[in-house]
Parts: sequence; C-alpha cells; structure tokens
Amino acid sequence: MPDCVIQSVSTRDARFPLPEGAGTDSVHTSSEYCFAVTLLASAGGPSGTGITLTLGVGNRLVCEAIELLARPLAGMAIEELMADFGRFSRQLADEPSLRWLGPHKGVVHLALASITNACFDLWAKSRGVPLWKLLLDLTPEELARLLDFSYVEEILDQQDALGILRDHLRTRPGRESVLRCGYPGYDTSVGWMAYGDDKVKELTARAVDRGFKAFKLKVGSADEDRDLRRAAMLREFVGDSATLMFDANQHWNLPVAIRMCRELAAFRPLWIEEPTHPDDIQGHVLLAKEIEPVKIAAGEHIPNRVVFKNFMQAGALHFVQADCTRLAGVSEFLTVSFLAVKFGLPVVPHVGDMGQLHQHLVLFNHIALGQEILFLEHIPHLREHFVFPARVTGGYYQTPQEPGASCDLKPTGSGG
Amino acid sequence: MPDCVIQSVSTRDARFPLPEGAGTDSVHTSSEYCFAVTLLASAGGPSGTGITLTLGVGNRLVCEAIELLARPLAGMAIEELMADFGRFSRQLADEPSLRWLGPHKGVVHLALASITNACFDLWAKSRGVPLWKLLLDLTPEELARLLDFSYVEEILDQQDALGILRDHLRTRPGRESVLRCGYPGYDTSVGWMAYGDDKVKELTARAVDRGFKAFKLKVGSADEDRDLRRAAMLREFVGDSATLMFDANQHWNLPVAIRMCRELAAFRPLWIEEPTHPDDIQGHVLLAKEIEPVKIAAGEHIPNRVVFKNFMQAGALHFVQADCTRLAGVSEFLTVSFLAVKFGLPVVPHVGDMGQLHQHLVLFNHIALGQEILFLEHIPHLREHFVFPARVTGGYYQTPQEPGASCDLKPTGSGG
Repeated sequence: MPDCVIQSVSTRDARFPLPEGAGTDSVHTSSEYCFAVTLLASAGGPSGTGITLTLGVGNRLVCEAIELLARPLAGMAIEELMADFGRFSRQLADEPSLRWLGPHKGVVHLALASITNACFDLWAKSRGVPLWKLLLDLTPEELARLLDFSYVEEILDQQDALGILRDHLRTRPGRESVLRCGYPGYDTSVGWMAYGDDKVKELTARAVDRGFKAFKLKVGSADEDRDLRRAAMLREFVGDSATLMFDANQHWNLPVAIRMCRELAAFRPLWIEEPTHPDDIQGHVLLAKEIEPVKIAAGEHIPNRVVFKNFMQAGALHFVQADCTRLAGVSEFLTVSFLAVKFGLPVVPHVGDMGQLHQHLVLFNHIALGQEILFLEHIPHLREHFVFPARVTGGYYQTPQEPGASCDLKPTGSGG
Repeated sequence: MPDCVIQSVSTRDARFPLPEGAGTDSVHTSSEYCFAVTLLASAGGPSGTGITLTLGVGNRLVCEAIELLARPLAGMAIEELMADFGRFSRQLADEPSLRWLGPHKGVVHLALASITNACFDLWAKSRGVPLWKLLLDLTPEELARLLDFSYVEEILDQQDALGILRDHLRTRPGRESVLRCGYPGYDTSVGWMAYGDDKVKELTARAVDRGFKAFKLKVGSADEDRDLRRAAMLREFVGDSATLMFDANQHWNLPVAIRMCRELAAFRPLWIEEPTHPDDIQGHVLLAKEIEPVKIAAGEHIPNRVVFKNFMQAGALHFVQADCTRLAGVSEFLTVSFLAVKFGLPVVPHVGDMGQLHQHLVLFNHIALGQEILFLEHIPHLREHFVFPARVTGGYYQTPQEPGASCDLKPTGSGG
C-alpha cells in the first residue's frame, strides 16, 4: 500500500452548547462541551481527526497550542511516523520552547492529545480498518514502539510491555466474543448536578428502558443534605440490583471527603469518583483507608503516565479513569493501561471524547491485555455532531466498523 | 488614603533573546526568556505589573489566558480586593470554563501567577511601599486572608498560619538586620549547559570577584562523562570552601538519576536539583533514600500548593524551590512557605522572575516566618530590561526601596 503523507495540519475550535443543566457538576457550572480538533490532510488520501475535550472559552488556547506543536507533522508519511511513534511523541512532549508550560500537563498536553489522536485516526483510515482492529493486528513489537516509557521505566519498560502482550496472545480468542456481543455502557447523563429529582427519575427510567444497568449521580454540592437526599432517592428508584456511582468532581477537601464518603456508603456505590483535588495523591491514600471498603475512582484530571504511576504505587485509587483526550492521546492511554495491568487495576475510561474513541480502546484493553470487562461511560449529548456516532443498543456499545477512530465531526452548521 | 481602582487589564508578550548559550540546560536548548506580563491600569494612580516566565513561542498562550481570566478585575478597588484575596484567588483558579485546562497547572495557572503578581505590585505601589514592607506591616489576620488554604487544610489552615505568624512576632527584630546587610545570592549563570570549560571558569572567576560564594552547574546532558568532568573541573576551580549545586533539569529517569547522583556526590554538592520528572513524587522518595546523604532540590516545575504538600509529606525533597511565577503568584508562594515551615524545610526560590520579586519574598520569609537565610538564585541576563533591576553588591541582594514588587519593565525598544 502506498504510504499516506500528511500535507497540512489545521484546527477547528468546535463548541457545542448543551441543553439546560446538562454537563453540570460541583465545579463546572456551565453547559458547553468543546473539542479542540486537529485535522490532518493527506494528498489524495483520507484525513485524520483528533479531539480533546474542554469546557468553554479556553478551547481556543488548545487550538493555538496544537498549531504551535504540530508543525513537524507536515510532510511526514503516516506509516513511517507510527513505526516509531513513542519516540516522536516524546519529542513533541519535550519541545524545548513549549515544555516549560507544563511539562506534560495543561493546555499543551491537551494539544498533544488532540494531535496524537489525529495521527492514530489517519493511520487506521489509511489502512482501511477501525482503530480497535488496527491495534489488535499489530505485532507486540509494533505496539510497544507506539509507547513512550520515559519516567516509568523502573515499573514498565518495553520488555515488560512485550511480556504482557505475549502472555495474553494465546487466550485472546476467548475474549474476542466481546466484538460480537458489544461492550456494556453506563449512563452519566441521568444525574447532572442541576437536574431536579423528577428529571433524574425520568431520565433514569428511560435509561433503564434502553437497557442500562449502571448510573452515575453528581454529588459534591454546597448543600450536603441535597447530595444525600438525591443519592437515597436514586438508590430507591433503581432498586438493589442496579449499579450506582457517585461523582464529586474534586469538590471536597480531605476532612469533608471522609465524612461524605462514609455517609454515601449507605447507598452502596460501586465507587466514589474524584472525591478531592486530583493532584492530592496522599489525600486519596488517607481517604481510601478511612472509608474502606468504599472504592475510589479517579483519572479524568490525572495528566500523564507519571502521575498515574504515582497514584498506582501509592494505592490511591481503585478504578483507573484514564482519558485519551487528557493524557497525550491513544498512546499514553495505552501506556497507562499497561501500568494498570502491572498493578492489577481495572481501566474504566472517562469519556472526554463522548465514548467515540474509547469504545475502540476498551476492546483492545480487554482482548490484548486481558483487562476485565466492566463498562464504558456513555454521554450522548453530542452524538448528532459525529459522522459515525457510537451505536449503543440494549445498553451495549456496538463494535464500530468504519475505518478510523470514529471522531470525525460533521461540518459546522450541520447537526443540531 | 483613597482606594485605587483598577480601570483596565492589558497584557504584554515580552520576549528577550539571550546571549548565545545562556539559559541552556539538559531539556531547554533555546536561549530565549519571555515574560507574559499583566498590566493593571488605575485611574490617576499607579499601574501594576505582574510577570510569569516562559521560554518561547508559548508565551502568547499565557498572555491570552491572562486576558480570559483577568476579566473580573476591571472596576475593582485594590484595597477591597486584597482584603480577601484568598477567596478571590480561589474563585479565579476555579473559573468554571477554564478550570478543565488544569486544574491549577499549566498555561492557565501561569496566567493566574502573572495576574496575582500584578495585584500585589499595584497594592504595594498604591500604599507607596516596597512589597516586602507591605507584607511585613500586615497584621497576621490580614496576611492570612491573602491565602487560599483549600485542599491543604488538613495540614495548614488559617489558624495554623496565624499561629506561625504570632509565634515569630516577638523574635522579629533580631531578624530585621537582613534589611541592612542584604540577602546573599548564588550565581546560576556561570554554568549553562552549552558553555565550554573555559567560559565556565572565566564566568566563575568573575562571579567570585563580585563576591559570590555559591554556584550552580547544569548537568543531565546526554554525555554523562561530560557532566562528571565539568563537575570535577568546577569543584577544583572554586576550591573546597565554595558551595556548588548541580541541576539536571529533569533529564534523568530514576535508575540513571540514582547512578549519576552517586557519582556526582564526589564533588560535594549542597543539592542536586530536579534529578527526574517533576511529577514523580515516589521517584524522588526512592532516589532520596538511595543517594543519602545527598540532598534533593525541586520546585520550579511543581505547579501548586497541593503537589508541594504531597512532596513534603512524602519526604521527597530537601530544598523547596517554590517560584511565585509558577505557583499562583505571591499568595500561593506564601502558602507554600507556610507549609515548608510546618515541615521544617527551607524555601530557596527558583527565580522565574530573575529575582526581582523573590528578593521581597525571601525577606518576608526570614523575618516573619523565621525561615533561615540561605541564598537567593541570581540570573542577571534580563537586568537591563527592568526599571529597577535588583542591586546585587558583594554577592548580596540589596533591599529594594522602590514602591511595589520591582517588576516594571522598560517599554519595548528600550534597554538592550
């Protein structure tokens, strides 16, 4: 196959106002989802689309950072680029004049996420396969060369990654049934902070009808009694067999988190998510001990593999909510997934991409790495804006068949 | 005194190419220092200048983030603002549409640093006093209200800060002699990575002549033998009585850091700085144990008080190199200084401001918090661009007397 060459890089500052109250939580009070989009044009071939999520006016900053950071891509052949992407990714992450702005976090790292995701999309499209299939068809050596192991080598290096891949090769066929059955989803859109009780109940009833068995509720409001009342209400409404998760979106300091998690334990959550500041590893460790056996989920604001490594080493989280639009894209997401395998922890992504891209990655994680099937977050608010929106039927993500990473957006003005 | 009201906020993207090789280290190969400057205009009164350092093209992103973040400032009276600045600072740091881009790190947090520093500068100028005097003249209650204790309360809350201030009130007069004697400096500009041996020796000899007794050398190059040779050369050149520090600027992974720190120990550094990735708390802990009694300095890339708290809790560093142009400005620098007092650690700032602003803060830390006098980094490359450049005589920073925070820059086109 002739190699596809990147001709030019452009960006799109895509903003989508949400329905009233959607997307609200304890710290994010506005209702706007935005994607800082990287677009890679190739000569006569497909174009690559990469996205990263932001929540408002700052989206423009990420688009500008993409333009500064992606300059070396023009003129590169995609197969050549992806044959040693780990090295290239490190080079971009350490760009000498931009590195100071992080390093490996904040606006510039979000830009790297968008760029990286566009590269993977273009690569899969140029081979004419969905991303999950591209990743599964790579040899262990090809896969490991996608990853940047720098600063995690004492826990995970290339040899470790190869070992994990090879160990799971023989048992792969047994796990491929997920491609036919689909990957279960859970619904976050029933319990936004600004929604009243009646709306939560109505949306939950609809989600139950559509086949969902797991639901997330926002907590962490200034009114703690409201949190507890809503949690009680939702548990009563869904009954004992449904799965609930509570999400505080970092609002609590440590003493409040200890108190509130103990109170919320009565409503049997599978996890409590982002209980306190996402940088506070030691705070999570102390909290985990204090609220045992309640489990902690975190990751949507953990910026890179180094911080994830520290969280895992410290025993500071039980569910790894890696997000390939917060981390440096698909490749750093995979590195974190390998780390999670090392520490025996489940990866349950946060879907900054609305689940479009992560639906591919959870299939890879299950089949190639042996990660157990839990469920993948589902937030439907932007589905009409995607060319190939994730198909969720009976509560299950249906395996995407279109070439690429499912992130192409309809042109401005189309959609809702 | 009539309150000074902020009329408008503007920014300046100030870039200063450095002399060949200056500013280079193991990860920053370009020679350009930039300030993202916040300018606060007041009606008929002084103007406030705040700076944050960056190293190149990304400076523009920080200026744009300042413009987005600083909107609430226009129309505010400075005394009213500073009477409850801790609350205001938290409000800006948690701005719902920008918070996702961090939180509390990266481009947006650098912007907050610049904004905060401009507020402190305007406040000091409006009272007609240098910043160090403004801070020292505040009551403990006024001082504590400048600080945002959120997410560090279990270690340091308002009562703790008040206690520290009150405990040191009685013994203050004994420490005020520093105002007359000056605060010792150390010279970083002798040992940039790109400098050849002869140049390092020549610059060191000059610095010795100017009264300096402590010097920093860049290490962490791809050529480890070069690092060791330069370290040996400098130790031999300065003799046993001089103080040396080695700075790897994050280049090493953990195994290499352990090996290189052990080798460099032969040259008796006071500390080894940024030995590995600045997010890797656990890596620093393991390293500290492995290389005992060699000490670790870190902080120029530690983004906020929460991460500093974690570093201190873990015993991951010995010298706290807080930088008020990386942290959210003067106020978060002070919060970190209080944390350091709690943990019995010395604060030795990294001077992202070239020492202009930090010369005020080390005086406060010594006199009001009882922090021991070590020395303050001195990098002279941009001195000609400041209206009131720090005066360093006989190796000592002379106490600044001009009103404000000493950060006003000459207009574009003037200076060198």
